[in-house]
Amino acid sequence: MSTPTSDRNRDSLASPSLFEPISIGDYLIRRLGDYGVEDLFGIPGDYVLSFYSELEKSPLNVIGCTREDCAGFAADAYARIRGMGALCVTYCVGGLSVCNSIAGAYAEKSPVVVISGAPGLKERSTGALLHHMVRDFRTQADVFEKFTIASAELTDPLTAMSEIDRVLDACDHFKRPVYIELPRDMVHVIPPSPHGYRGVLREANSEATNEAIRETIERLAAAKKPVILAGVEIHRFRLQDEMLQLAESANIPIATTMLGKSVVSERHPLFIGLYEGAIGDSEVTRVVEQSDCVLLLGAFLSDINLGIYTAKLEPNRCVYVTSESLRISHHHYHQVDLKQFLVGLNGETSRLPWREIPNRSVEEPHEKKDSDDEPETESLRTSWLIAKLNERLDADTIVIADVGDSLFAATELTIHERTEFLSPAYYTSMGFSIPAALGAATARPDHRIVVLVGDGAFQMTGQELSTLIREGHHPVVILLDNHGYGTERYLHKGNWKYNDVATWDYGQLLRVYRSGVPHRVGTKSEFITAIDTAWSQRDQTHLIHVTLEENDASDTLRKLAERMGEMV
Amino acid sequence: MSTPTSDRNRDSLASPSLFEPISIGDYLIRRLGDYGVEDLFGIPGDYVLSFYSELEKSPLNVIGCTREDCAGFAADAYARIRGMGALCVTYCVGGLSVCNSIAGAYAEKSPVVVISGAPGLKERSTGALLHHMVRDFRTQADVFEKFTIASAELTDPLTAMSEIDRVLDACDHFKRPVYIELPRDMVHVIPPSPHGYRGVLREANSEATNEAIRETIERLAAAKKPVILAGVEIHRFRLQDEMLQLAESANIPIATTMLGKSVVSERHPLFIGLYEGAIGDSEVTRVVEQSDCVLLLGAFLSDINLGIYTAKLEPNRCVYVTSESLRISHHHYHQVDLKQFLVGLNGETSRLPWREIPNRSVEEPHEKKDSDDEPETESLRTSWLIAKLNERLDADTIVIADVGDSLFAATELTIHERTEFLSPAYYTSMGFSIPAALGAATARPDHRIVVLVGDGAFQMTGQELSTLIREGHHPVVILLDNHGYGTERYLHKGNWKYNDVATWDYGQLLRVYRSGVPHRVGTKSEFITAIDTAWSQRDQTHLIHVTLEENDASDTLRKLAERMGEMV
Repeated sequence: MSTPTSDRNRDSLASPSLFEPISIGDYLIRRLGDYGVEDLFGIPGDYVLSFYSELEKSPLNVIGCTREDCAGFAADAYARIRGMGALCVTYCVGGLSVCNSIAGAYAEKSPVVVISGAPGLKERSTGALLHHMVRDFRTQADVFEKFTIASAELTDPLTAMSEIDRVLDACDHFKRPVYIELPRDMVHVIPPSPHGYRGVLREANSEATNEAIRETIERLAAAKKPVILAGVEIHRFRLQDEMLQLAESANIPIATTMLGKSVVSERHPLFIGLYEGAIGDSEVTRVVEQSDCVLLLGAFLSDINLGIYTAKLEPNRCVYVTSESLRISHHHYHQVDLKQFLVGLNGETSRLPWREIPNRSVEEPHEKKDSDDEPETESLRTSWLIAKLNERLDADTIVIADVGDSLFAATELTIHERTEFLSPAYYTSMGFSIPAALGAATARPDHRIVVLVGDGAFQMTGQELSTLIREGHHPVVILLDNHGYGTERYLHKGNWKYNDVATWDYGQLLRVYRSGVPHRVGTKSEFITAIDTAWSQRDQTHLIHVTLEENDASDTLRKLAERMGEMV
Repeated sequence: MSTPTSDRNRDSLASPSLFEPISIGDYLIRRLGDYGVEDLFGIPGDYVLSFYSELEKSPLNVIGCTREDCAGFAADAYARIRGMGALCVTYCVGGLSVCNSIAGAYAEKSPVVVISGAPGLKERSTGALLHHMVRDFRTQADVFEKFTIASAELTDPLTAMSEIDRVLDACDHFKRPVYIELPRDMVHVIPPSPHGYRGVLREANSEATNEAIRETIERLAAAKKPVILAGVEIHRFRLQDEMLQLAESANIPIATTMLGKSVVSERHPLFIGLYEGAIGDSEVTRVVEQSDCVLLLGAFLSDINLGIYTAKLEPNRCVYVTSESLRISHHHYHQVDLKQFLVGLNGETSRLPWREIPNRSVEEPHEKKDSDDEPETESLRTSWLIAKLNERLDADTIVIADVGDSLFAATELTIHERTEFLSPAYYTSMGFSIPAALGAATARPDHRIVVLVGDGAFQMTGQELSTLIREGHHPVVILLDNHGYGTERYLHKGNWKYNDVATWDYGQLLRVYRSGVPHRVGTKSEFITAIDTAWSQRDQTHLIHVTLEENDASDTLRKLAERMGEMV
């Protein structure tokens, strides 16, 4: 069975208008639009000014960031929400500044298109060293090969447009970043012969797919306590409906990984919580680890996802499916398409028995904790704060968590809709959140954006808040200030100076950026006042600077650190 | 003739104490000390915490930065001043964040040691994906191979110490960055057999060297108007004395490239100015281009150094020597050591005739311009401001210029001592200056650090000012605010929105960092007041926010843009 996966794009491009003469630069812009890219992030530089001018004249909205790596994070967040994101930077000084953001997008499967300017082909022959050049003209392209799924240098007018097609298709299909290098003297070149998009045909192995479906259904049917463990690919490949159909047809409970948090609404009756091995909710751990058939759908088996190796998932009771591989017990099926597999399972659900799920109390653990453990004290703890934030979340809120306890504590939140929680939970690159908020606000301007960020992470990329303000967005930034790299204090015991970061008066930044309401809170009642104000003044940016005890940590972090600390 | 180039280090390490048992981590720390590294920049992360703890216990001073790329720039500036710099970061999220800084150090020959933590060897075998990982365990090392001169992964206790020796020697010898990856479970490993440093023997070709010296002396002796064009390698390889001896022995005038600015005191009687082809001082251009023997010493033939290809330097009247190659007219000598070559020339200077240099007015061009061109107006122009700053420079000042008109205008400054001007004049990466100020202040705490930076560049890395303040330094930051990427406005005409950056009230940042004196100036008299205050209050950080006309540009930028604009 052959599977043309890109019908949508092929159809939209089959119109004869495409055969008008069009320059390489304009073709790239048009093709990005075909994939739903309406906004693009970046910083101009002289090797890319011609293309920037084409962008500014085009329907694409270009958002200038303060730093290139911020543009990378913003495009990544935009891609997670919209299905594709893009950034445009200049040669080397720009491109080599986004290595980390793009590596993160590669690791966490976010479809980001990196467009880089480059020296013109004509000027390369002079023999002089060109500014921004490192070793030779290939240096940057060589580097990006390490963390993109496809790349192209548009040096030949005859192939440039089919190269653009190939690379954008790979981005869309594999949900990984791609790299396009555009020499500055190629932007306006119109290829001598017309070009039409032809789509890409991909072959799945239908016999292997059918056999895998059959075996999986048999295992699910025979199982007494099946469970689905959903990962981030369910979101990336837009398979939430297919997964829910499967779960609902046979009443199979769903847990998610940390990176996959929010691929299903956490208010869904079948949702049981985050599975994090020994460091997570013990009830969820029990359900998953005592299951006789765990269907892992699009989950990465990473150390943090697996609770630092405390996860107990013996292969012989697992069906482990991702977009790249399918393993049942100890045998593997190749060339199985994740979506076809899920659709196939849904075609066979009549063979699955309906099971009652044992009643499970779905009360909020933090609310309980709040009233139980710390009824009267005014001093702030992260877990309490998260519980209070949780009460305010609704379907119009996107929560973005940075690395550190912002992330671990945020796992305690209940997310209402799909895709409404963004974090770099596997690659864990600090400084993701504020630029990602720019990407998310651009992708969903009607949503309220809430950022949870530590002081160390904020100092890395916090200036992107000025771009959010400049673009007219009004995020709520909750800055958890424990005066340093708090997670590391837990990971490696000892009173090490290197974990301290400079003490900032963060609220004053809003004076620098000339907009927004600062809040400084150190007690529970101050936090409640601040968050209430932030919620009621939605046309303002709010920066809530929360002073925490130096050794405060969420329960999740405490448990995680206990495990990881053994290895550091 | 064989040339052991590292006697110094070999001697210092020949002491029997080295044969004490010592761990790999401690050996690395000790060897950095042998090269004069006393301070190290970086950000800790869990894959490098063990090594960080060793660093904190060691005599090395560890300076925590706000961002990893800032640590890279700081180490680069430190290396330019001290002869070697180092930074220490965690795996991937840290390492891949410094690609751009290290690529710049590679391009401009700055000897920086990148130390990165990495997953422990033991944990690599589990098959799980480890956090911070991109594609496989080699991804980061593969990337760094593209812009380092040597690299090592310290995975084998038997070879780890000799690998450290090899890599640090390459850094010192080639003046390029190197990369050392230290898995976290190797830090405390003590190799089974003792290790002693043996130095590295390098063979130069003495016959080729002697012939090149002979031919060069003959050309210099026969020339009527010889001139030296000194580049940045004269500083990197500490050859200022040798170059001056040669120039003074035969009264040969010296020009420098833009990147080489300040390799010779600009008050030296033989110094004639910066050579920048058609865009530079026409008198300097005349002297260099009419010379019948141009001795290019350690200069890069880059586009900006050569005034965007306007330089007229026919090979048949040039002797072009760098640490990597030697060309006289159209023939090449291989394996000639730059220092030996210079020392050899100085041994033969008795054969050179003494020439009178035609009297040349050495008055400051900007001072002249100030009084002539704009006597009464109060509105600020960059060139006027640079002239006023110039009057205050002394031998204790280090000037650091960021990219853009900060750099071009700064070429109009007169630098008093060697090495007192730092800029990324070839690689031209924006955001260099503030973190570089941290490196320079650490390397020379007794000097006054003056930073010239545009608003676009400052928004990229300005937060490192907080680290300068935290470390007790008191730089003077002159922030030239033209509301955007001003150079690009000149390079590519048109009223493009993408060149605008957010409007900040920069002075308020000092409230965020809780120290320092803000100045906001828009007129000449306000600038004079601010700079006088900054000079008199040396125990304070000063941030002078200069509002410029949107289209202000130094004369150098105007000429440069005219040339470059043709290619953009």
